[in-house]
Amino acid sequence: MSADLRTLRERLAEISDLQRSVAVLFWDQRVTMPPLGAPARAEAVATLGRIAHDRFVDDEIGSLLERLRPLEESLEYDSDDASLIRVTRRDWEKERRVPSELRTEMLRAASDGHLKWVEARRNDDFAAFLPVLERNLELKKRYVECFEWEDSPYTVLLDDYERFMTTTEVAEVFDAVQPVLTELVREAPEIDASFLHEHYPEDLQRDFGQRVAETVGFTEGAWRIDPTAHPFCISFSTRDVRLTTRYDETGLHSLWSTLHEAGHGLYAHGISETLERTPLAGAPSLGLNESQSRTWENLVGRSRPFWTHWFEPLQATFPDQLGDVGLDDFVAAINRAEPGLIRVDADETTYSLHIILRFGLERQLIEGTLAPKDVPEAWNAGMRELLGVEVPNDANGVLQDVHWSSGGIGYFPTYALGNVISLLIWSVVREAIPDLDSQLEAGELGELSAWLRDNLYSLGRKLTPKETIERLTGSPTIDPQPYLGYLRDKLAALPAGA
Amino acid sequence: MSADLRTLRERLAEISDLQRSVAVLFWDQRVTMPPLGAPARAEAVATLGRIAHDRFVDDEIGSLLERLRPLEESLEYDSDDASLIRVTRRDWEKERRVPSELRTEMLRAASDGHLKWVEARRNDDFAAFLPVLERNLELKKRYVECFEWEDSPYTVLLDDYERFMTTTEVAEVFDAVQPVLTELVREAPEIDASFLHEHYPEDLQRDFGQRVAETVGFTEGAWRIDPTAHPFCISFSTRDVRLTTRYDETGLHSLWSTLHEAGHGLYAHGISETLERTPLAGAPSLGLNESQSRTWENLVGRSRPFWTHWFEPLQATFPDQLGDVGLDDFVAAINRAEPGLIRVDADETTYSLHIILRFGLERQLIEGTLAPKDVPEAWNAGMRELLGVEVPNDANGVLQDVHWSSGGIGYFPTYALGNVISLLIWSVVREAIPDLDSQLEAGELGELSAWLRDNLYSLGRKLTPKETIERLTGSPTIDPQPYLGYLRDKLAALPAGA
Repeated sequence: MSADLRTLRERLAEISDLQRSVAVLFWDQRVTMPPLGAPARAEAVATLGRIAHDRFVDDEIGSLLERLRPLEESLEYDSDDASLIRVTRRDWEKERRVPSELRTEMLRAASDGHLKWVEARRNDDFAAFLPVLERNLELKKRYVECFEWEDSPYTVLLDDYERFMTTTEVAEVFDAVQPVLTELVREAPEIDASFLHEHYPEDLQRDFGQRVAETVGFTEGAWRIDPTAHPFCISFSTRDVRLTTRYDETGLHSLWSTLHEAGHGLYAHGISETLERTPLAGAPSLGLNESQSRTWENLVGRSRPFWTHWFEPLQATFPDQLGDVGLDDFVAAINRAEPGLIRVDADETTYSLHIILRFGLERQLIEGTLAPKDVPEAWNAGMRELLGVEVPNDANGVLQDVHWSSGGIGYFPTYALGNVISLLIWSVVREAIPDLDSQLEAGELGELSAWLRDNLYSLGRKLTPKETIERLTGSPTIDPQPYLGYLRDKLAALPAGA
Repeated sequence: MSADLRTLRERLAEISDLQRSVAVLFWDQRVTMPPLGAPARAEAVATLGRIAHDRFVDDEIGSLLERLRPLEESLEYDSDDASLIRVTRRDWEKERRVPSELRTEMLRAASDGHLKWVEARRNDDFAAFLPVLERNLELKKRYVECFEWEDSPYTVLLDDYERFMTTTEVAEVFDAVQPVLTELVREAPEIDASFLHEHYPEDLQRDFGQRVAETVGFTEGAWRIDPTAHPFCISFSTRDVRLTTRYDETGLHSLWSTLHEAGHGLYAHGISETLERTPLAGAPSLGLNESQSRTWENLVGRSRPFWTHWFEPLQATFPDQLGDVGLDDFVAAINRAEPGLIRVDADETTYSLHIILRFGLERQLIEGTLAPKDVPEAWNAGMRELLGVEVPNDANGVLQDVHWSSGGIGYFPTYALGNVISLLIWSVVREAIPDLDSQLEAGELGELSAWLRDNLYSLGRKLTPKETIERLTGSPTIDPQPYLGYLRDKLAALPAGA
């Protein structure tokens, strides 16, 4: 290995160690930390983050990347080393454009905004949240000015979550998706799902979720699940993956939440070990990462074949709640479409509509065609138009999500892109594993998991999101038709008026 | 605040954040980490440790400390700022003397040695462990050469755990202690403790241990207990204290283990908040820290007044195991003296003898009067002489402890010093709180806890161990007589031949 490459790898490995340590601090904070530990924890996270950032934007990294150009050009485009140099260079150039002073202000505004948002939501008080939104937008505008853009300033924000994706491209996808979904929701049959709202004891949910998660393809001793208030997945290496789940005893939501986080976890778990401790040890984008959480939660976890295997064990676990329920009714209930107010409670069909609403508002806010004070009105009008529901108050409307309070603008679209991308990849999976349904019916998830690992997860962040999609599907286009077709077929198969 | 002092505090705060983060990584590794996460965790710990070390030994810290001499001299000796400058200067001067290359070799030898020790102990194979011991001794000799010493090269090693304590002083204490303990053990009555070896279900032990720990004086929301294989206590701030305990269902050992770790935890919890994120946020030495774990485990947790309150709740928790046992018999059983092979299983009276044996061997090894290959023979002879027991094999003899495998030479004496110091402080506590026994009988630990916090724990590491002891007792001497008197009285009170 060239001395420069060795030095670059050493520097990046140290930065990765710092970032992984921040991840451990974060996991501990959300899962185990006593509440009064928060102030000291915030200091530690800030210090490690600052050291990692300072080390990354150092001139030395730039010089190394410059000197490594000839080596990069002599190597295969998708080799580990060429990818490392190429991807790191773009990350470095992006990171260098942002003055540390602005970064610090953004961090401070985020933590301050979060506190005010918690309060504002509790009091259903948009007026109290308005200054937070205005402040974050002002900072985002200063952030946007650090970069060039073509179609919309929003593209700059999007790029932090979905590299190389433009606002125009997202709008094209969403413009195709929205009318179909709105129509599907309007026509969806009403389904009896009352048995999903019985009392389901937490310990039984935990045991069942653990059993299912053990079959999705994790190596033993390389992962765990813990309870938390807001589920997430984080990893400290490909061999230390942490899923978290929230247990709500008034339903079985934790099962799909576990499968969702397991999808994220399998991505992290499947990244090639040769990419460990480099900036390539991640998913290419949030959208691709989300495509896999959605794959395991929905395409697998709400499918009839999957429940053909698992419904009996579920009934045996919850005989009082599900003993009298048939498989068909269960599958219908977990696949029903039902408009509601809250994004995180939304079903598979309505979910993307919640996102499309937020994307539209964010874009207008950043492009300056919507004033922050007018957001509640626009929100409520959008909910009426897209989902046909009336928003009773801001706490259950515009104030419901944490993202805007901490400056997470440009993040939302990745959720819906994930839904769309999941079906692009699923079509390829179906061709590659023709008897997938029989495998699911037999409770066998190993081949599916290995295929996704070998063909997708192992690539890590070497390729751009579009290159990754093209590698799998043959085309970089994010075509929404497979996604729409899937939902259409699914809803059509539901018993009308059951 | 002077600009130099502010800069020094900022630098030290960042280093403290790095060290606290390493502590979180360590806690997670021992309590929650999936086993395959170990290699990545070792890398992260090494990187953070290296960054913290490099930042601390930086010339800038030395210049700041030099420039701050006039300020230091203008302030009260025990003020936070003067103490910070003084203590940091000594830490810095010590740390600077050790070449990084030697530090790295020691770290590598420690982790390599640990693996070989696990294997050697499992196979009862001292020959396999001998090269590890030899290698660690060779590195310790090189380490010793970085410093000056007067009475013995062992003093250099001791200083890492017990600042300013000399080998001669330790030997004086132990020479006074050993014959008395050996005599006490020989004459101790046999006590029936069979009821302590019944089956005690883990969940009930956990609940009871939690109940007791809630009364020792922790602020709610600032601590927690988790199960682990080898109990320890660690803190990430005064408001984030983590106790760990091992639950063994063949006895009640977890109760005293919990109280032991709670003692360490209360020390960390009681450090003045003004010392947070500085090198003063700790105990003055391991011996003083251990004095408090022993205080809560033994002086409180094996006392008759404590159990006057807690025995009934304990009986109610374990009616089958303890329903027929009287308080007197219970107190006698938990205070009996019974020689055994294993240090960590030793009772209060025999424990220090295990330490005195190790101290003698370590000292001879470092002074060059004992060859590593002859340690097993010397060990077995010592066990016969001090405790009157025959060692059947090395696994239950010289190979039982982890310390030497990772280069922890000089650490053992602090355990026995802790026992001795605990009684020095306890004598003062008894005078300060004349009705302590009635408080313990009423289950009230608050005044005791607050007194120790205000008079000891809050000082942190501002003073040296001896200065700290003098502050409390009026004399810097580590007088073993209160300790010996306590054990003598305790054993005399046991029913003879019960």
